[in-house]
Amino acid sequence: MKIAIAGSGALGCGFGYMMQKGGNDVTLLDFWEEHIKAIKENGLSVTVNGKEDNVIIPVGKPEEIKDTFDTIFIFTKSMGLRNMLEKIKHMLTEETKVVCLLNGLGHADTISEYIPKKNIIMGTTVWTGGLDAPGKTHFMGEGPVEVQNSDENEEEGTRQVVKMMADCGLNGIYSQNVHFTTWRKACVNGTMNALCSLLDCNIKQLFETSQIDELNHGIVSEFSRIAETEGIKLDVEEIVNYLKATAEKVGGHYPSMHQDLKNKRPTEIDFLNGVVAKESEVKGFEAPYCKQITQLIHAKEDILGIKR
Amino acid sequence: MKIAIAGSGALGCGFGYMMQKGGNDVTLLDFWEEHIKAIKENGLSVTVNGKEDNVIIPVGKPEEIKDTFDTIFIFTKSMGLRNMLEKIKHMLTEETKVVCLLNGLGHADTISEYIPKKNIIMGTTVWTGGLDAPGKTHFMGEGPVEVQNSDENEEEGTRQVVKMMADCGLNGIYSQNVHFTTWRKACVNGTMNALCSLLDCNIKQLFETSQIDELNHGIVSEFSRIAETEGIKLDVEEIVNYLKATAEKVGGHYPSMHQDLKNKRPTEIDFLNGVVAKESEVKGFEAPYCKQITQLIHAKEDILGIKR
Repeated sequence: MKIAIAGSGALGCGFGYMMQKGGNDVTLLDFWEEHIKAIKENGLSVTVNGKEDNVIIPVGKPEEIKDTFDTIFIFTKSMGLRNMLEKIKHMLTEETKVVCLLNGLGHADTISEYIPKKNIIMGTTVWTGGLDAPGKTHFMGEGPVEVQNSDENEEEGTRQVVKMMADCGLNGIYSQNVHFTTWRKACVNGTMNALCSLLDCNIKQLFETSQIDELNHGIVSEFSRIAETEGIKLDVEEIVNYLKATAEKVGGHYPSMHQDLKNKRPTEIDFLNGVVAKESEVKGFEAPYCKQITQLIHAKEDILGIKR
Repeated sequence: MKIAIAGSGALGCGFGYMMQKGGNDVTLLDFWEEHIKAIKENGLSVTVNGKEDNVIIPVGKPEEIKDTFDTIFIFTKSMGLRNMLEKIKHMLTEETKVVCLLNGLGHADTISEYIPKKNIIMGTTVWTGGLDAPGKTHFMGEGPVEVQNSDENEEEGTRQVVKMMADCGLNGIYSQNVHFTTWRKACVNGTMNALCSLLDCNIKQLFETSQIDELNHGIVSEFSRIAETEGIKLDVEEIVNYLKATAEKVGGHYPSMHQDLKNKRPTEIDFLNGVVAKESEVKGFEAPYCKQITQLIHAKEDILGIKR
């Protein structure tokens, strides 16, 4: 399969590496010049679950790559999605599948402005990774990658992508309910990710506070109400228990938004609590938890001098 | 006038020093042994607006002092008020005036459980100070100290206390509207104090964020609604403008609650936003800003290992 990775940070490099190893023709796309230069000169160094490797892999800015692709995986930050879709227009054929595994809500709507619904594959993954230096990343986990075609009558192409990922050790599976998984993951990020960032603590510390139950219930109730308007049933108690179980597993981890603030990068809050606050306003609900958390995180970005 | 200072931190020492200098018989009360010992052995060092002095002044734990007093000034933290009232019972006569200049809401109700209304003097001050070491404090400003008798038919005794403070350079004035001043000061503390603590920034940084208008409006509206149920009119726009003007004056200052967290002491949030959240619940209003800020500050206290 001829594959492009649109956004080659830690996850993009991890997926690209695994899929090339599995026999596919993979090209990495990115905008970070130092990173591109390092990969061109020294190859891509990837450590997968502790095992180090170095591979030669095509890489470039989107405007430098003239090919078209069978499948394009998008691994930008949420706020970089639209710009990336603009920049990869010339790589698309009528059959090109676009796979989006980004955190956050509302991405399917953005993608559908550029790509016909039959070619959009939405999903989530629990693979994680980190960027250690230009050209050097690590990749951890065992998956799965759950995906579903946006047009449910067009599963066939998506099933081929799933099979390809499974063959490459990425643990791809076809989901009948990717909307639910996406919303549940947004709840994880909208609670522990947002709160750890605001309170400057790790997940274990957050879940040991006396306030976590009230905060989780407040936030998840607001997510649940908007999910329901989109036909997704999120049981608040069930999700809150899922959060607790997740927190127990990850423990002393600092979530991504905390790392964003620490490294003075804008957060994805507008695609999590921010979406719920905005949609609630449009639909006539109150969402004071999500609204205030979004305001506080933006205030924190401003204080840290982070440009949005 | 025979005066006790119940709670001899920075403000208590400053007031005690000024009133003794002005010819009154002043005794300091406190619970901190190191501080008491230092004052007993080396005298009290006070720097008033940059001018240093050292004086001999009676000091002790409340249980050690057997006298009664004409006037007792309370300068505890909000959460120490009730305990202090218990500990000074034996120093009260039927005529002893109790002056409370504490930040926060609801203190008059607590004091009225111990003291007849005619003897309660409520007020606010803009004097500030700091504790540099045991026995060593500084005191800054020019006042005023605005006070009002809780029973408005009993102004006479309070006017004597006001005159005494004026004579001592403390700029005491009798106010006809101390309730308003108290609520307005609570709005200052419930916005900039709480938010700087949560966002770990100074007042200048907070007021430069893009979110400050929405946050101030959200919080002040909730304070205003509860103030109104107590017969106090707080115009939201007027208060928000007052906050801006105050912020411009104090600039790069880190407010007291920020210092509390930094020094791992419990904050006074339960006597500011916490009161508004609680009263709103009792009275059937929503107060999501105050409620969530109280929860987040308590979560932060928990993370820092601060016992409440």
